[in-house]
Amino acid sequence: MNTKYEEVLKACLECLEACNTCFDACLKEEDVKMMAECIRLDRECADICAYAAQAITRNSPFTKQIIELCAEICERCAEECAKHDYDHCQRCAESCRKCAEACRKMAA
Amino acid sequence: MNTKYEEVLKACLECLEACNTCFDACLKEEDVKMMAECIRLDRECADICAYAAQAITRNSPFTKQIIELCAEICERCAEECAKHDYDHCQRCAESCRKCAEACRKMAA
Amino acid sequence: MNTKYEEVLKACLECLEACNTCFDACLKEEDVKMMAECIRLDRECADICAYAAQAITRNSPFTKQIIELCAEICERCAEECAKHDYDHCQRCAESCRKCAEACRKMAA
Amino acid sequence: MNTKYEEVLKACLECLEACNTCFDACLKEEDVKMMAECIRLDRECADICAYAAQAITRNSPFTKQIIELCAEICERCAEECAKHDYDHCQRCAESCRKCAEACRKMAA
Repeated sequence: MNTKYEEVLKACLECLEACNTCFDACLKEEDVKMMAECIRLDRECADICAYAAQAITRNSPFTKQIIELCAEICERCAEECAKHDYDHCQRCAESCRKCAEACRKMAA
Repeated sequence: MNTKYEEVLKACLECLEACNTCFDACLKEEDVKMMAECIRLDRECADICAYAAQAITRNSPFTKQIIELCAEICERCAEECAKHDYDHCQRCAESCRKCAEACRKMAA
Repeated sequence: MNTKYEEVLKACLECLEACNTCFDACLKEEDVKMMAECIRLDRECADICAYAAQAITRNSPFTKQIIELCAEICERCAEECAKHDYDHCQRCAESCRKCAEACRKMAA
Repeated sequence: MNTKYEEVLKACLECLEACNTCFDACLKEEDVKMMAECIRLDRECADICAYAAQAITRNSPFTKQIIELCAEICERCAEECAKHDYDHCQRCAESCRKCAEACRKMAA
């Protein structure tokens, strides 16, 4: 893979982990209804991060477009997660913001 | 792709659609907590069906093992969905059972 | 899933199948080197089609952006496949073009 | 995610990167025909590693079965890559073997 993508790859993999950890934890919370949008966006965000990681490492001709989409989905997931006080949500919001920034910087 | 897999491919694609439709609908139900295990398994099942569809169509050397795993996950998802009276759950359970059968038959 | 997406979903699934069939066939051709770009783009295109199918069926809030990206990747894959006379390439080019059109129409 | 899976997750992500790097490099080699099986298995292996990473991090009820399948695919990819002297193939074979071992150990 192109080494200039190392930082964004790392950010995507950390975000994938944080989103899936949050997805699993949200499904176990007492008030699942309150977490419904978070569950939905965690899946969206984990999936685009996995897809971006594949694209980056195989040197996809579409990497730029894919990480731009990744930034947008990460931002939306960060916004939703930030609303909830749970540790898993706060950590997820932080990982999503970092990943969005890394993607935006790289795509620019 | 190998035409002998046509039936199982069709079953996987229908199951993918039913599981994701059920995932989306469960997240919108009044009592989301009751649907938590269904939401989790819908995602598991949609993902293995998508993975199996990719494997079948690219003539993967691991198709047999992948559709065996697909059968197992479909069976678990069918079991959970069958517990709930919602139309989306009953339809999903039916698609999962059909897909599991098609996978078992093909893998045998 | 939202029924207005039925046509584009169908196009994505047919394109996924055509791209993976072409990927497998290209790897078995006599002159694999000539097919290298086709192999690369078949994988790119199959993967975005699988991802779009997941997004559409789970009613993703990002469906519009995902199918726009799908259209772009399909167009590039169609262009490459159209250069080769093999049946699997011509069929793939046709499926990619149809999928690109369905995605563009839907996203508009 | 369950922290006992940390080592296997790390191995899967390194293997994903090595396989996709090898996939891209093989497509650019002079003799692509000689690399055809490597290209095919690199994709198979990258995809199961991505799938395993998703399963592990979302605490999938099927993690054990998925990493067993991952081990099998990694072993086959390692075998094929080990036949070729290219650095990208040798590095990929090494990552595949490590990942297979981590998966086997964890699944036991």
